[in-house]
Amino acid sequence: MKKFLRYARFFVFVLPLLAMQQDKPLRVIFFGDSITQAGVGEKGYITQLRKMLQDKGLGDQYELIGAGIGGNKIYDLYLRMEDDVLAKKPDVVFVYVGINDVWHKRTHGTGTDLDKYVKFYEAIIKKLKDNNIRPILCTPSVIGERADYSNEQDGDLNLYAAKIRDLAQKNGLTLVDLRKDFQEYLEKNNPKNEEKGILTSDRVHLTEAGNTFVAEKMMEGLLKK
Amino acid sequence: MKKFLRYARFFVFVLPLLAMQQDKPLRVIFFGDSITQAGVGEKGYITQLRKMLQDKGLGDQYELIGAGIGGNKIYDLYLRMEDDVLAKKPDVVFVYVGINDVWHKRTHGTGTDLDKYVKFYEAIIKKLKDNNIRPILCTPSVIGERADYSNEQDGDLNLYAAKIRDLAQKNGLTLVDLRKDFQEYLEKNNPKNEEKGILTSDRVHLTEAGNTFVAEKMMEGLLKK
Amino acid sequence: MKKFLRYARFFVFVLPLLAMQQDKPLRVIFFGDSITQAGVGEKGYITQLRKMLQDKGLGDQYELIGAGIGGNKIYDLYLRMEDDVLAKKPDVVFVYVGINDVWHKRTHGTGTDLDKYVKFYEAIIKKLKDNNIRPILCTPSVIGERADYSNEQDGDLNLYAAKIRDLAQKNGLTLVDLRKDFQEYLEKNNPKNEEKGILTSDRVHLTEAGNTFVAEKMMEGLLKK
Amino acid sequence: MKKFLRYARFFVFVLPLLAMQQDKPLRVIFFGDSITQAGVGEKGYITQLRKMLQDKGLGDQYELIGAGIGGNKIYDLYLRMEDDVLAKKPDVVFVYVGINDVWHKRTHGTGTDLDKYVKFYEAIIKKLKDNNIRPILCTPSVIGERADYSNEQDGDLNLYAAKIRDLAQKNGLTLVDLRKDFQEYLEKNNPKNEEKGILTSDRVHLTEAGNTFVAEKMMEGLLKK
Repeated sequence: MKKFLRYARFFVFVLPLLAMQQDKPLRVIFFGDSITQAGVGEKGYITQLRKMLQDKGLGDQYELIGAGIGGNKIYDLYLRMEDDVLAKKPDVVFVYVGINDVWHKRTHGTGTDLDKYVKFYEAIIKKLKDNNIRPILCTPSVIGERADYSNEQDGDLNLYAAKIRDLAQKNGLTLVDLRKDFQEYLEKNNPKNEEKGILTSDRVHLTEAGNTFVAEKMMEGLLKK
Repeated sequence: MKKFLRYARFFVFVLPLLAMQQDKPLRVIFFGDSITQAGVGEKGYITQLRKMLQDKGLGDQYELIGAGIGGNKIYDLYLRMEDDVLAKKPDVVFVYVGINDVWHKRTHGTGTDLDKYVKFYEAIIKKLKDNNIRPILCTPSVIGERADYSNEQDGDLNLYAAKIRDLAQKNGLTLVDLRKDFQEYLEKNNPKNEEKGILTSDRVHLTEAGNTFVAEKMMEGLLKK
Repeated sequence: MKKFLRYARFFVFVLPLLAMQQDKPLRVIFFGDSITQAGVGEKGYITQLRKMLQDKGLGDQYELIGAGIGGNKIYDLYLRMEDDVLAKKPDVVFVYVGINDVWHKRTHGTGTDLDKYVKFYEAIIKKLKDNNIRPILCTPSVIGERADYSNEQDGDLNLYAAKIRDLAQKNGLTLVDLRKDFQEYLEKNNPKNEEKGILTSDRVHLTEAGNTFVAEKMMEGLLKK
Repeated sequence: MKKFLRYARFFVFVLPLLAMQQDKPLRVIFFGDSITQAGVGEKGYITQLRKMLQDKGLGDQYELIGAGIGGNKIYDLYLRMEDDVLAKKPDVVFVYVGINDVWHKRTHGTGTDLDKYVKFYEAIIKKLKDNNIRPILCTPSVIGERADYSNEQDGDLNLYAAKIRDLAQKNGLTLVDLRKDFQEYLEKNNPKNEEKGILTSDRVHLTEAGNTFVAEKMMEGLLKK
């Protein structure tokens, strides 16, 4: 009888705790710019990723949170890191930033120097690691979809993307190499060498297909390891 | 007799300590860009200011330290603040930055957005105050010496300078309004409306006369209050 | 009787010719950018000027033609001069260009070097004069309406405006100094130092009030001499 | 005897004429920017090309003239075409321009819009053809020698180069595709992905090896057809 009570206690008190622990989903923050801001929209990549995870029966295991603000560059992320990331105690943070750092050189004269980009990026990685948060790094997708390297800022985007690849490798972090993925996709699927209209609506922001594409790549990154 | 010994002790031990305390000079750091980097040169404004203070018999009361690095913008100062300023435990810090934040919009496409400029500036002021350091704010001098508001980036410099004036007032800080001072000087002393050669050698960096001019304004700011 | 016939002939043949000559209006072309393109709209400055002239009873004496194309810079005017100006055999041509030459430095990286601006401007003046057409030169109005010289490109606009003043003087041409006129108006009528909303809707393009203002200045220029 | 006289006449009168005709060299002008300006230097590509032609025994058949001016863009060539090209009555004109049209977007904000670049280029081709001069078109070489498409302005240079290829094809003109040639060479000969130091000294201007390389490509173009 005593034994029974012991088991009963186990089932009544301990099991639910274990279950709760299992049920507590991994909190994932997507930290970025306008692309990520739009990612929480009805067709956005974060919304789509949530559905993809549900379809895989993994819906309970991940809590996805968007933290994108239009126009953000690396140092904007740095400045709002405490409030928008650390305060929310995430387990994983996707860092998807760099397009404005390059783009704004042309449009506003206020892009980010490459060396400063790397410095702030390193500072962000360090803060995440210091807080036991897993960073996943993403290379900047595109500013223009032409597949023959004739978009005005392709060269600069390639340069910044290369630095992010270095940072991922040096820090042993998962990389979602969107720039490479987009380039490969567009080489096959942009036969007329259009500037926009395949994965982006305006050379930068994602179409529904673009959001699907990014969601798939993000899922691969998230499930890695 | 006992009383005498007491006084004697006072004179022998305590007074020198008081004197030492009085003699301990105020540590002043000049935190800025290439203009400040050159400020420690033989004819630089920091070197000249040191001599001016000596001539006034105030040489022992101030220790002047240059902390200028060429090309620095507001967020460069922010990034190296711990190492180059706080670690040295200064009493006063002149913040003289903004020219590259505007200039690099034109030359590198990597100037600083006005709102970010203010955000980082505020963060610097806050850190200084939190460490009981007195900030003295300086408006950016010139990019081009024409006195009729026809230097390419006059408008933008005026805008950034206005924000620094606001920051000084809002925080109750001493302001060295170099932009206003330069403008007034050049209106009187640049009759041919030259682009350079009066206070600057190349539209930005200071001639000996320019260094003297800045040293005088810095002294006024330092001795204020 | 002979005398009568002579007079009769005079009234029958010659007077109508004189009248015709008087009636043939002066053909005036406004040659410029998007501001001039909008000038032919319902509230546009050209439309308003036409009404002003009618109100003065001068409606028959002037034929006003808009020849503005959005985004045009000095060399765009040069390239389309034959088709859009000379082919129409005007008597007077207002040249109102320069805003994009300065503005596009910031927004597209494709502004016009000052020396090239002057060269193409001189080439346009020469062609007009060679074709017995009277050029009237206009300085560029504004990019931003702040009255304290803190619009980003004020300095550069002032520089280009100064060159147009030189060109007018050197060539003995009428000048419509819109930049100076706007500046004086805004100093009085922009007490809150707003960037737009007084004479422009978006820092550059004219509100109805702005179009009225420009129409008045253009009329002064047209009626001069 | 008569026969002898005939031959004698032939040798005395006709042969010299033929020789003269053979001796009159083809006048070739190199029309361009600072690269071409340096091309007439001791190690410059024009000087080297002259020697290469001499080594081939073709020295008498070509007169090479440099017409390069530092900083020139397409519309600078257009503006000085009469004086520097047509007045000299050349037979062939190499047009080698475009680097500054792209580069100055970044460094001065005064690059050339792609559509205007094409318009002025077409105007130059037309004028040359109207004067029975053979144009040879050259694509812009490089701004930065990295071989992995990560030089800041690679994308834009590729775009402008593509337009020049179109112009050559549409007009049936010889093309010296320096951009393609440089790219292929650097992929093989720049294993460390250096930014400069292989064919250029400073990312743009040619080393001696670079001048040799260009001279060889120019010779191929010149001897074609």
